[in-house]
Amino acid sequence: MTAAGSGLPVVLPGPGQEALAATLVQALPGVLGEATVRRFPDAESFVRVESPVAGRPVVIACSLDRPDDKLVPLMLLAQAAREAGASRVLLAAPYLCYMRQDIAFHPGETASAAHVARWLSAAVDGLATVDPHLHRIARLEDVYGVPCRHVRAAPAIADWIAREVARPLLVGPDEESGQWVRDVADRAGAPAIVLTKQRRGDRDVEGSVPDVARWAGHTPVLVDDIISTGRTLAETVAHLRRAGMAAPVCVAVHALFAPGAAEALREAGAARVVSGDTVAHPTNAIPLAQALAEGVRELLGA
Amino acid sequence: MTAAGSGLPVVLPGPGQEALAATLVQALPGVLGEATVRRFPDAESFVRVESPVAGRPVVIACSLDRPDDKLVPLMLLAQAAREAGASRVLLAAPYLCYMRQDIAFHPGETASAAHVARWLSAAVDGLATVDPHLHRIARLEDVYGVPCRHVRAAPAIADWIAREVARPLLVGPDEESGQWVRDVADRAGAPAIVLTKQRRGDRDVEGSVPDVARWAGHTPVLVDDIISTGRTLAETVAHLRRAGMAAPVCVAVHALFAPGAAEALREAGAARVVSGDTVAHPTNAIPLAQALAEGVRELLGA
Repeated sequence: MTAAGSGLPVVLPGPGQEALAATLVQALPGVLGEATVRRFPDAESFVRVESPVAGRPVVIACSLDRPDDKLVPLMLLAQAAREAGASRVLLAAPYLCYMRQDIAFHPGETASAAHVARWLSAAVDGLATVDPHLHRIARLEDVYGVPCRHVRAAPAIADWIAREVARPLLVGPDEESGQWVRDVADRAGAPAIVLTKQRRGDRDVEGSVPDVARWAGHTPVLVDDIISTGRTLAETVAHLRRAGMAAPVCVAVHALFAPGAAEALREAGAARVVSGDTVAHPTNAIPLAQALAEGVRELLGA
Repeated sequence: MTAAGSGLPVVLPGPGQEALAATLVQALPGVLGEATVRRFPDAESFVRVESPVAGRPVVIACSLDRPDDKLVPLMLLAQAAREAGASRVLLAAPYLCYMRQDIAFHPGETASAAHVARWLSAAVDGLATVDPHLHRIARLEDVYGVPCRHVRAAPAIADWIAREVARPLLVGPDEESGQWVRDVADRAGAPAIVLTKQRRGDRDVEGSVPDVARWAGHTPVLVDDIISTGRTLAETVAHLRRAGMAAPVCVAVHALFAPGAAEALREAGAARVVSGDTVAHPTNAIPLAQALAEGVRELLGA
């Protein structure tokens, strides 16, 4: 099948994103297009759209973990696709960058999320992503100036837990995580508990202790959207172990994994650490391409 | 002197640009401001303007060699300075990136220079740079939407040659370089020759051979705007050596130096390789901060 011979969208790999593009082509379905993204000897990016895209929608597949040196070639590639005649240029970014920098916490800082959103919105006509970190920003459209679809990892995570974990007990490390954890638990047909932070004295803040006897024989499952340093999750794992719970399984949507994060979780006593495949990592176990493709299809149909 | 206590511009270092900022502060003069530019564990950039800048012009000092992972923190820092109340935010970029990508040579490519110019123009209110690579783009303002000043390295290069090279003979490797080489020669009070490409047979293209006898006792000086791979310059050095000329001195404005470039020039027979200090490199010998500061002062006065 040639790109010119079909009505399907052309999927172009962003910088280093050949595997993601190939997966997305299957899930959409689409046609795999070819793009050259390399660096000149002076370290500037060179991009070229190698496949015919005139009159057709283009989907650039690019997960935006470690984003700084991806953003320039990505935005140039989007421009090249547009100039090559693409009818629309969409971005399929399973992990969306800079969403945690949603406020200027101190004078002299800036809400980077909004600026990056403005740059990307000038480059593409639409954006699909998986579980963006929406905290102070309520909707992607509040910062992105183009149509956005954010798809949820919860159904795929719940499927994985129901399939892989015997007698799972979903555990939310704090009240903030409650709604999300209960949703996954409901979908997995599993019970859920949510810990509360308790202050004991001036400096001793620790999560509440679960009813260990009641949950004997269950495997605690901790779910979070992002594992970066892994510190929060490791603390909760250690807390549960100290309380006498079984070794927990840790599940994250986005496996950013700063250096040392995997070790910290292991040392804290996690039985297993798994992640969605939005960011390539050895812990990837939960495929999310079908969910992402659904978001892209909605954009294409809109 | 505190930043708040003077009418001078506040110079903020871009990512990794503390040395340039300190030099520019002296040359302007200005007040050295403090900026934090670092990476979070997840590799996203964090920026904070640490000095008071409200109501004052800010000059961000940032050379844009190896630009891709500098552009994001640079543009965020410009936003942070603006939000901190800077009256204007100027960019002093001794080396300006992407100017050689000034055309789509083949279908599917894009003229990256124009896109990067648009992004930077949205981030800052003015730009000063040294000898940008203006080839198909005649003036910076043709792609930049903000006031620009480009200052010339020729006077400083001519000074250096007059001071450091005994009986210099300026050599232009091809006709394109002629105007620039003759200008430097005039300023240095030195003679100049410009080689012409000669085609001998189908594939044998070589520069014309200079009048070796006439220039015996002179030191050839090759001048170029950018040394990246160093290939062009190395070929000319080898050509002059084969013709029987003395070992040449190579002078570049911008020392990009891809891996292997310095070795290629040495192996070709260069006596010495020196550069302007727009890109930090061991060959830096020609200070250009005064010239850059002049461009910034013009912008500030405009």
